[in-house]
Amino acid sequence: MNRYEHLANVLGERIEQGLYPSGQRLPSVRMLSNEHGVSVSTVQQAYRMLEDRLLVEARPKSGYFVSASKRLPGLPAVCRTPQRPVDISQWDQVLAQITSRVIPGMIALGGGTPDLTLPSLRPLSRALVKVAQRTDLSALYYDLIDGSKELRDQIARLMIDSGSSIDAENLVITTGCHEALSIAIRSVCEFGDIVAVDSPSFHGAMQTLKGFGMKALEIPTDPVTGISIEALEMALEQWPIKAIQLTPNCNNPLGYNMPDERKKALLRLAQCYDIAIIEDDVYGDLAYQYPRPATIYSFDDDGRVLLCSSFSKTLAPGLRMGWIAPGRYRDRALHMKYIGTGASATHPQLAIADFIKEGYYQTHLRRIRQQYQQNLCVMTDWVIRYFPEGVRVSRPQGGFLLWVELDEKIDTQKLNRLLEPEKIQISVGSIFSASGKYRNCLRLNYSQLDEKIHEPAIKRVGEVIHQMMENG
Amino acid sequence: MNRYEHLANVLGERIEQGLYPSGQRLPSVRMLSNEHGVSVSTVQQAYRMLEDRLLVEARPKSGYFVSASKRLPGLPAVCRTPQRPVDISQWDQVLAQITSRVIPGMIALGGGTPDLTLPSLRPLSRALVKVAQRTDLSALYYDLIDGSKELRDQIARLMIDSGSSIDAENLVITTGCHEALSIAIRSVCEFGDIVAVDSPSFHGAMQTLKGFGMKALEIPTDPVTGISIEALEMALEQWPIKAIQLTPNCNNPLGYNMPDERKKALLRLAQCYDIAIIEDDVYGDLAYQYPRPATIYSFDDDGRVLLCSSFSKTLAPGLRMGWIAPGRYRDRALHMKYIGTGASATHPQLAIADFIKEGYYQTHLRRIRQQYQQNLCVMTDWVIRYFPEGVRVSRPQGGFLLWVELDEKIDTQKLNRLLEPEKIQISVGSIFSASGKYRNCLRLNYSQLDEKIHEPAIKRVGEVIHQMMENG
Repeated sequence: MNRYEHLANVLGERIEQGLYPSGQRLPSVRMLSNEHGVSVSTVQQAYRMLEDRLLVEARPKSGYFVSASKRLPGLPAVCRTPQRPVDISQWDQVLAQITSRVIPGMIALGGGTPDLTLPSLRPLSRALVKVAQRTDLSALYYDLIDGSKELRDQIARLMIDSGSSIDAENLVITTGCHEALSIAIRSVCEFGDIVAVDSPSFHGAMQTLKGFGMKALEIPTDPVTGISIEALEMALEQWPIKAIQLTPNCNNPLGYNMPDERKKALLRLAQCYDIAIIEDDVYGDLAYQYPRPATIYSFDDDGRVLLCSSFSKTLAPGLRMGWIAPGRYRDRALHMKYIGTGASATHPQLAIADFIKEGYYQTHLRRIRQQYQQNLCVMTDWVIRYFPEGVRVSRPQGGFLLWVELDEKIDTQKLNRLLEPEKIQISVGSIFSASGKYRNCLRLNYSQLDEKIHEPAIKRVGEVIHQMMENG
Repeated sequence: MNRYEHLANVLGERIEQGLYPSGQRLPSVRMLSNEHGVSVSTVQQAYRMLEDRLLVEARPKSGYFVSASKRLPGLPAVCRTPQRPVDISQWDQVLAQITSRVIPGMIALGGGTPDLTLPSLRPLSRALVKVAQRTDLSALYYDLIDGSKELRDQIARLMIDSGSSIDAENLVITTGCHEALSIAIRSVCEFGDIVAVDSPSFHGAMQTLKGFGMKALEIPTDPVTGISIEALEMALEQWPIKAIQLTPNCNNPLGYNMPDERKKALLRLAQCYDIAIIEDDVYGDLAYQYPRPATIYSFDDDGRVLLCSSFSKTLAPGLRMGWIAPGRYRDRALHMKYIGTGASATHPQLAIADFIKEGYYQTHLRRIRQQYQQNLCVMTDWVIRYFPEGVRVSRPQGGFLLWVELDEKIDTQKLNRLLEPEKIQISVGSIFSASGKYRNCLRLNYSQLDEKIHEPAIKRVGEVIHQMMENG
């Protein structure tokens, strides 16, 4: 056993024994180096090992912390997918979710809205005011079909953090990430084509496949390392797959970051079978680690990755501002952009460009990443405390979404119906599968937690689940 | 001959002889009633007859005026269309037009932007500021998938003017009229379907058909009364047409209002063959007549008309705010909305709702309709003065677009290339045809005319056309 493995085991045991409670700051690298008489790099390697075991979390500039719980529940299981392309169902449930979002008084525990109330976001409102007041009326005119140069320049700068050096000319501004995904899908696929997807997978992207007449082939996905490269290769052997659509960073709903080596292996596979990759990076800037993880796009050298993202999770979804880096599919993507919505709205583009240029984006990002990471511990603890034993939860490495797997008997659609009179709502798991799997799963949003509202709500959800278990 | 026919002839001759120059105000109804010893209603009937002959134009609250020119050039010819469904071409030219729009210093004579500089539009900028300053941060949150109730309520109120009594629940807010058309097309058609279109027809809607793999069947269209019902019926007999897509009011590019009787006949035909109608009404509120013409939608009693519109021509295109009234296709339209862009942007919805509620919309409309009608006379006069004899022009009944047909020898794509060094650009006719017809036609925008800029530019276009004629 190496020195660092030994140290990792010692620390791991202390955590397991409850010596360091969940969420607590661990001794600094320097302190442990002195205590155990090992080098700083040995301590760092030990901590990295504990990170891999999901016992420890690194926070930028703050050091290492005990993960959400010292005794974390099991991880969600890797799902047995149908192993054949399917017509995507579940539109009714998706519609129910997106239309119920704003029922007055409803505590929506599962939605996709970030915290918009932080002071670090206030300069964005000021930027919107400033653009509306411009005497050249720039907010009112049609913009270029690929979007304002000001904003594209800023996005190109931000993308350096995910490993990409991109020319602003190769970006197209879109109406949110949803339009980016819609453009990407239509740029590389036609009616009837098969697209491989991670599973569970973002319901909006799958509904987009459905709407354009494509079939989804769900690939088993590990809750820590992401889509199975092996299963994907078998599928590629068997089916005429046109593209792979996935969220490798801060995955929605599982929260993992795919290791770089697996991203590269995926890319090699795509090259080998000459297919496109549609990469959803909408939560990527919310990774808890620093620097943020690289995109598959950043490893791509022949233009087959279409990167889709937006400011809906990092800034504000109501502005509907996203982008696509369509690689070699730029001409087709421009056509798809034009026929979907024409140019994107001018006003929010100019305001966001200004917000980033003034340095507010990075400040806000630091602030919300910290909050989301802290909230993750709180939410995980609540789930452990109030949900029946045997519950399994994801280990998000970024973003603000927790995936919860319940006993097989529990149908979360039924759970939602039982919660309706109490004006509580969770996201049902089945919408994250093309074939209606994950009926016993649910998604929770921990972007903004109020102990007086959210803890009693989670407690109540737990009670109803207990009742459902008892009633069989 | 009736009294009013006699009076109409007398006045018509005076106009033809140049007694009243183009654009001049004609004697009031009361004055003519005294002068000719006839009743007020006889004079009104005479004027209406002269309106039908396109010699006279009524302007709300201002009286009657001599049309753009006393000796108007001929109308554009009704085009011989291919009489079979075609794959839509011309994307390259459309792309050239939409990307060249913002080349600095370019005088774009053909674009689709309204006048945004009028004081009557200023309250809109103020409304945008007000919404951005709201402490409830309402501009930042996701909106409902079908759009904000506030805005839908206001649009429902506005639609009374076009003859519709609609519930706000039956409207879906979209990212401009372009998304409305895109939703409509995908709500009623599938890949490979045939759609009948007016000809010439709005290039954006045709490119949308192309992008979704549908074929267009161009129906001959009269420059005064619109799409030929007779030709349409023949086409319906011969081909499995799924929908008719057209702009019956303030047509783009021809400017006509289809008479109500023909709208009803079209609807009966659609009922008879059980197909949908996609009605583009984006210029409808800019009709010069008062009250504005009715929509086909307003006559529809079985939900087969999908009405598409936006605030891009009446207010500001940069806000990207439109709507669709999808009739019986609401569920499908909601799905298509969701998979294209998700919800629409919240901020401009709330600002526009406020702008309309405060009465600014109607005030602005009165102001721009008047300006556009006056500018029409000016632009038509310039074309007559500077373009070669034999030029044919449309007689717009609303909006701000003039359609010009040149000698068959002239290719307006070549014209545009010759104008490029002088930084002048017109819209080429061929993009308004699925099959590349109208190569000898062009579209001009007269929303905002500066005599120092636009008259020399039109003069220069005329000179280049003259040169092209001489060089054969």
